[in-house]
Amino acid sequence: MAPVIIMSSLLFFTILHSAEASDIASSYSVHSSDVRDITGVKISIDLAWTLLCGFLVFNMQAGFAFLGAGFLQKKNTLNYLTMSFMDFCVGGIIFWSFGFALMFGGSHLGMGLDAGNMLVGFSGFFLSFGSFDFSTSQLWLFQMMFSAAACTIVAGAVAERIKFNAHVICSIVLSGIIYPIYGHWVWGGGWLANLPFGSGLRDFAGSGVVHGIGGLIALVGAWMVGPRFGKYNPDGTPNMFHGHNLSFVVLGTLFLLFGWFGFNAGSTLGSTDLRVSIIAANTFLAACAGGVSLMYITYYDTGKYDIVMTCNGTLAGCVAITASGAYVSHWAAVVIGIIAVFILKASLHFVENKLRIDDPVGAISVHGANGLWGLLSVGIFADGSYLGVKGLITGSGWQLLSQFIGCVVLLVWTLGLGFILFYIIKKTIGLRVPVSEENTGIDLYEHGIPCYPGFN
Amino acid sequence: MAPVIIMSSLLFFTILHSAEASDIASSYSVHSSDVRDITGVKISIDLAWTLLCGFLVFNMQAGFAFLGAGFLQKKNTLNYLTMSFMDFCVGGIIFWSFGFALMFGGSHLGMGLDAGNMLVGFSGFFLSFGSFDFSTSQLWLFQMMFSAAACTIVAGAVAERIKFNAHVICSIVLSGIIYPIYGHWVWGGGWLANLPFGSGLRDFAGSGVVHGIGGLIALVGAWMVGPRFGKYNPDGTPNMFHGHNLSFVVLGTLFLLFGWFGFNAGSTLGSTDLRVSIIAANTFLAACAGGVSLMYITYYDTGKYDIVMTCNGTLAGCVAITASGAYVSHWAAVVIGIIAVFILKASLHFVENKLRIDDPVGAISVHGANGLWGLLSVGIFADGSYLGVKGLITGSGWQLLSQFIGCVVLLVWTLGLGFILFYIIKKTIGLRVPVSEENTGIDLYEHGIPCYPGFN
Amino acid sequence: MAPVIIMSSLLFFTILHSAEASDIASSYSVHSSDVRDITGVKISIDLAWTLLCGFLVFNMQAGFAFLGAGFLQKKNTLNYLTMSFMDFCVGGIIFWSFGFALMFGGSHLGMGLDAGNMLVGFSGFFLSFGSFDFSTSQLWLFQMMFSAAACTIVAGAVAERIKFNAHVICSIVLSGIIYPIYGHWVWGGGWLANLPFGSGLRDFAGSGVVHGIGGLIALVGAWMVGPRFGKYNPDGTPNMFHGHNLSFVVLGTLFLLFGWFGFNAGSTLGSTDLRVSIIAANTFLAACAGGVSLMYITYYDTGKYDIVMTCNGTLAGCVAITASGAYVSHWAAVVIGIIAVFILKASLHFVENKLRIDDPVGAISVHGANGLWGLLSVGIFADGSYLGVKGLITGSGWQLLSQFIGCVVLLVWTLGLGFILFYIIKKTIGLRVPVSEENTGIDLYEHGIPCYPGFN
Repeated sequence: MAPVIIMSSLLFFTILHSAEASDIASSYSVHSSDVRDITGVKISIDLAWTLLCGFLVFNMQAGFAFLGAGFLQKKNTLNYLTMSFMDFCVGGIIFWSFGFALMFGGSHLGMGLDAGNMLVGFSGFFLSFGSFDFSTSQLWLFQMMFSAAACTIVAGAVAERIKFNAHVICSIVLSGIIYPIYGHWVWGGGWLANLPFGSGLRDFAGSGVVHGIGGLIALVGAWMVGPRFGKYNPDGTPNMFHGHNLSFVVLGTLFLLFGWFGFNAGSTLGSTDLRVSIIAANTFLAACAGGVSLMYITYYDTGKYDIVMTCNGTLAGCVAITASGAYVSHWAAVVIGIIAVFILKASLHFVENKLRIDDPVGAISVHGANGLWGLLSVGIFADGSYLGVKGLITGSGWQLLSQFIGCVVLLVWTLGLGFILFYIIKKTIGLRVPVSEENTGIDLYEHGIPCYPGFN
Repeated sequence: MAPVIIMSSLLFFTILHSAEASDIASSYSVHSSDVRDITGVKISIDLAWTLLCGFLVFNMQAGFAFLGAGFLQKKNTLNYLTMSFMDFCVGGIIFWSFGFALMFGGSHLGMGLDAGNMLVGFSGFFLSFGSFDFSTSQLWLFQMMFSAAACTIVAGAVAERIKFNAHVICSIVLSGIIYPIYGHWVWGGGWLANLPFGSGLRDFAGSGVVHGIGGLIALVGAWMVGPRFGKYNPDGTPNMFHGHNLSFVVLGTLFLLFGWFGFNAGSTLGSTDLRVSIIAANTFLAACAGGVSLMYITYYDTGKYDIVMTCNGTLAGCVAITASGAYVSHWAAVVIGIIAVFILKASLHFVENKLRIDDPVGAISVHGANGLWGLLSVGIFADGSYLGVKGLITGSGWQLLSQFIGCVVLLVWTLGLGFILFYIIKKTIGLRVPVSEENTGIDLYEHGIPCYPGFN
Repeated sequence: MAPVIIMSSLLFFTILHSAEASDIASSYSVHSSDVRDITGVKISIDLAWTLLCGFLVFNMQAGFAFLGAGFLQKKNTLNYLTMSFMDFCVGGIIFWSFGFALMFGGSHLGMGLDAGNMLVGFSGFFLSFGSFDFSTSQLWLFQMMFSAAACTIVAGAVAERIKFNAHVICSIVLSGIIYPIYGHWVWGGGWLANLPFGSGLRDFAGSGVVHGIGGLIALVGAWMVGPRFGKYNPDGTPNMFHGHNLSFVVLGTLFLLFGWFGFNAGSTLGSTDLRVSIIAANTFLAACAGGVSLMYITYYDTGKYDIVMTCNGTLAGCVAITASGAYVSHWAAVVIGIIAVFILKASLHFVENKLRIDDPVGAISVHGANGLWGLLSVGIFADGSYLGVKGLITGSGWQLLSQFIGCVVLLVWTLGLGFILFYIIKKTIGLRVPVSEENTGIDLYEHGIPCYPGFN
């Protein structure tokens, strides 16, 4: 019911709002004939680049959906696919209504984004203002996909036992408040970007802003919703739940890698910044290094070539290079990817065996732990060749201090708000499906149909 | 046999034709060194944009294939995938041979496209003429993917009982005659674009031209081929057939949304038209609004979170915004998407229960009904900010009149030619597979193998 | 064990290498503000084009993975997906370490690529040198995806019986030595490109360099690893093994076609070469012509509409047009695609019945035989309209001679090194899994889990 009310109010407001919007719309018009000099041409190029990269990032939603679905039991597949799907549908409406305004208001990245301070933005609501323009819509679309990614990361960790509506509310709060405000601090001209150490916090494409937030909210959510029945034995040792369809794990990972090129290289917001090729190559190298390392490390441990771990290894490499891809050399990307898989392994063990938190897809370790590592890696490996960001390898430790502060703030902000969020949900509509529903499978209860009716 | 003869004749003609083509080919050469001023650079940018968006539109073929396949019974999956696949293979040859020439001849959009009148084009056959050039090939490729989309929309509605060859003939006539001629009237400089009311008919990326035509031919086809056995009870009430693999429905929908960015934003034919970011954002907002609305409307009706309906809701939003995406503000895109799902619901009910036409994937309602709504929405919500197109919200009703005429012509043209087409097929090779084949499944009969040999 | 040692050494070397790399990195910096004239703008456009096309080529890895997986038995699906996945992970590290340096050293295509001769390059190791720049990273990324494609082609032919590590070693040698050195001869300024006949060997996007090499290594590998148990009866007649999931065959083919646009049209390395639209349209036409022809030829032979053959027909058309797509007219693309399917059919028959080599996915015939046909097709159909390359249809036979020499060298080089490679593997770690493993399925033995745990 809650989402229905929220949605309805927003849509109602939208229609009321329309009169004002249509007044100003007519003041805006740009055509091809207006592009007549180098500046105009550069705008066109950057627009094409950013939009096409944004489309690729949208394809990551397919990646998250199928990666996660493959990891789960067959009886909960449709539920997970539906949650992933809603993450961008609901998130789209929320981020358009106010998330984007909180995040980029005051950033001056688009014409109408003038009002905002170091803590929060407050211009750009509903993408309509006195001087709205193509560049704001472009930025919104690209950032929208990032916001959806953060939401979907959570879905995997709480899958197979969370109530559908509880997850939808989580996505609304995440894409409307938690993500945009931290994002404002880093990308919207906020206080973290202006820390007086080094170049201030630098998170190029969002190891922290997107993956860190998603992974840490996932941590709180998975903890508060509790482990799946049967995950832990009475003595506290965990049991293994196999995914129901590993071909989907591979498919989803390939979609994610495909989209990640857009995620990272698109974050320049234009290919007139020729750094894009370095970023794309770094992304791929970190993924390869992560995949190869974890494949053989796992083989050394278990004697099996574990494709599921390998997939998560490539993704861990990608998450880690997301903050640093623009600032580091190719060799550093390889090193960052290799370190990422050791962090992944340690975190998987720690979460499952020490914290005893049940994370069916490994989202906490892939996105959360490596999101933090990605932030720190900027402070270590940045070589000063891009925008003057210099890490430890250039002899300066100040950047690392900024990155460390960014990590601490990320932890406090995300774990804190995440706790409040899930606590309120738990005490109101409840977080978890009934026992009988968990046993039978959520697909039949909440969605009325299994995912594969032709195979039952 | 019919397609074999048609194909063979075409290919024979092609080879005969080659002597002439190779004569003139040598007169054409453009290299990077020829791009030396702002005009040349703009051409390069627009070429990159249009081609990359065209590639994305090709990816919609994967979307249609898997969306539809998921909706069907397992025993007919391979048949449907094969029909989808042939739609672009056969369609590619036909649209190259003559479809494109009928559509864009006389449009002057490419150097050789000079001959044509308000009713039909007649230049550009086989993409070879005295002055053929890169811009014509670019336009052909982009439009080719649109033509394939129109064909594939039909496949879903007639699936599970149409003869394979009957569908292939339908695709030949659709991509060779029905689609190109109506397309000429709207996009090729024809009479509908030049209606004297408002700006003439405006269908930005083809709500009517692509989706309307596809959906309405689907209506005729599904009506004439008749419902699947068991779809209707003796008292006329319909039964529900569940799709065999709902993960494919979600996968296909995600592919379609991914490709739709190219479909709509690519229809500017260039990113030097900075409107592209508005279009892309509008497309996404209409999809989100459609998805969220139908999710909760369906929940209100049935108590279930129905991902299948939600997928169709996002697609309905996309179809509706396709005509109007360039002309309207963001709030209007949301409103258009929400209205689209009410039209979808009403149309699904009307087609299934009143017309008693069996449409396994909902193509008639998603593409046909919302194609018409998309056309009308331009006349209502266009705010005058792009190319001066002004709808009701600016106080002018003339544009709506043009859009309404476009709808009427679309209905008459498509339903009329569709009827003739399917009537001739029915009276010659027959439309429908034998009863035994329908019961056992078309895969085994026409393709000799089931879709999932490893799972039987 | 071998790959572990190789990988470890490489990574160790990388870290040692880092000191030098970081010294020079700081000398490099390009920002948007440096793009201030037509030349700068052209660089930005070409960078965007090449990178985005490279991302599409990466998507072909998903295509190869799912095309191949669908063709195989369920019990070996995960093994094949893992091999495909490792092809780009391991290949990425190898091609970055030295493959790229051997291939493009001396080509002067990037600033640091200065050292090399007509036989082999030797600059660009680890992508780090005194003047490394964005254009080298761009070229590396694009070419990296080509190298991965060559490796994955082999995986299909040797699937269901090769040892996992044997395949990994094959990919290391292929992407590190066999592919780069032949590639250097054709694309890196080597001797084949400088043959004194016609324009020298011209292989536009790699019919020979990528597909020919992959397909011919596949031939040697499949021959030396031997046929699957049960493939051949005692009298030498072959048995048919059905793929386990034909929906994956269609999915993979659609991914491949999507990516092929990037593969071919991206090989201009920029859209300021306006030829890109001709190339993209030729690619699509050859695919369509291949698909339609083989669909109806197969129907004529068997009475069934065989989607699996049709998929391979479209791919054969794509492989053939890969060398010639830039040099020929659209009608010639159609003819090349049609001839490709006759070659495909003849080769499939020859390989299976005469050579008695077991190629589960048809890689030898699709990529090997049609790779050679693609090379020759340049010498026949090139019309002189692009870079002056003139084939038989213009009255000159010299280009065909260059292409023929290229084929002979390709055969000798690839079959020769392929034999040495597989012979050494066979005599050391062994090529083939034990009988019991082949019977039970490689997934359980080498990977410890079936691909579809939820469906068993």
